Amino acid sequence: MTDRDQAAAEPAGPVGAPSDRVRVRRKPDRGHYDREVIDAILDAGLVAHVGYVVDGQPYVIPTFHWRDGDRVYWHGSTASRMIRTIESGAPICLTVSLVDSIILARSGFNSSADYRSVVVVGVARAVTGDEKVRALERFVDALAPGRSAEVRPMTEKELKQTAVVALSLDEASAKVRDAGFGDDPDDAAWPVWAGTIPVRLAFGEPVPAPDLPAGIEVPENVRALTDR
Amino acid sequence: MTDRDQAAAEPAGPVGAPSDRVRVRRKPDRGHYDREVIDAILDAGLVAHVGYVVDGQPYVIPTFHWRDGDRVYWHGSTASRMIRTIESGAPICLTVSLVDSIILARSGFNSSADYRSVVVVGVARAVTGDEKVRALERFVDALAPGRSAEVRPMTEKELKQTAVVALSLDEASAKVRDAGFGDDPDDAAWPVWAGTIPVRLAFGEPVPAPDLPAGIEVPENVRALTDR
Repeated sequence: MTDRDQAAAEPAGPVGAPSDRVRVRRKPDRGHYDREVIDAILDAGLVAHVGYVVDGQPYVIPTFHWRDGDRVYWHGSTASRMIRTIESGAPICLTVSLVDSIILARSGFNSSADYRSVVVVGVARAVTGDEKVRALERFVDALAPGRSAEVRPMTEKELKQTAVVALSLDEASAKVRDAGFGDDPDDAAWPVWAGTIPVRLAFGEPVPAPDLPAGIEVPENVRALTDR
Repeated sequence: MTDRDQAAAEPAGPVGAPSDRVRVRRKPDRGHYDREVIDAILDAGLVAHVGYVVDGQPYVIPTFHWRDGDRVYWHGSTASRMIRTIESGAPICLTVSLVDSIILARSGFNSSADYRSVVVVGVARAVTGDEKVRALERFVDALAPGRSAEVRPMTEKELKQTAVVALSLDEASAKVRDAGFGDDPDDAAWPVWAGTIPVRLAFGEPVPAPDLPAGIEVPENVRALTDR
């Protein structure tokens, strides 16, 4: 999980080939550039980490994200400097990562992890007007499908306070390790437990709001989040 | 979770005050600068996201991390460009984030999340010699306390292939929302389920290696990871 290399040196490659900025260099066999793999990881991840640069210093900020077609979106306060930096056209990097297991081999060196990650680079743009309303509805639905039609609609004031940005998936790559347990056969007799520990993001039993009127049960679309 | 602002503009403040680069600007009441809070979040997080810049382009790479005293560490292949960029003295940002719950209010706008995050900025340094061996042992022990004394010791060749870097916690801040459910009282009667969904990183039942000799049970230190 530590060895993903994506350094910008050359311009993007021809259409259909990964750009040099997102090409997986370390362990290239773990690199994937097809949108099916990339989209599935973006959709499975709850939180993205967005990197941007101010005066040469990178900052990495966690944010909820969601995908709609060929773009990944996130939102923030219009007063947020992260949002304002991004809206100014600064180059950014959005990364989503999921750990699927920890692999404890008989040596530290051969210990590893199964994981899935996506890196997207580019320049994001501010989303406005009807697209912004639709994007925010999509965010609500990404957590609980159909919920955007059930909640109290956004007010003009709320819309003004909320910024939404979109980043194209044109320059994106995935890196996946799904090889499971592996170890040096010479170490097999070393007298220590070895194996795999599954890891996942777990959603617990929903807790009703203290002021929830009686008779409103946990709906299917919220339950689906718990089961995912 | 979207509104953390940490932009570099002014030099670091006086000793004891947060530097301007890590001061929490949006929702400053969520900002924490005491090491107890920062350390607990770093220790609870499994994966960090490290940001660095190449030719003006930020990259954000997930990596396992661990803490030892006043530093956070991570490792990688000596062939990794991420590691080589960091070792060259480039400014970096390391971020760890944990989502504790998703809060579904009766509006999208008031929906939120409880979360804990830490941002560390600075220049990392390569760890060498005895400190490197100790750091890698500490990494193994961070996953399963005491395991570094149980596994097959590192070889010289493995040590040469592995790079370890350390980043001081001198410039670090935490941002925490732990307010639980909140909503606009005017929306309380809106006819939709509202409440909180707990979220956590869950470790499953350990799966023994296919070639594990009979009679080696899951030890306490691995079991502890599962229960954490």
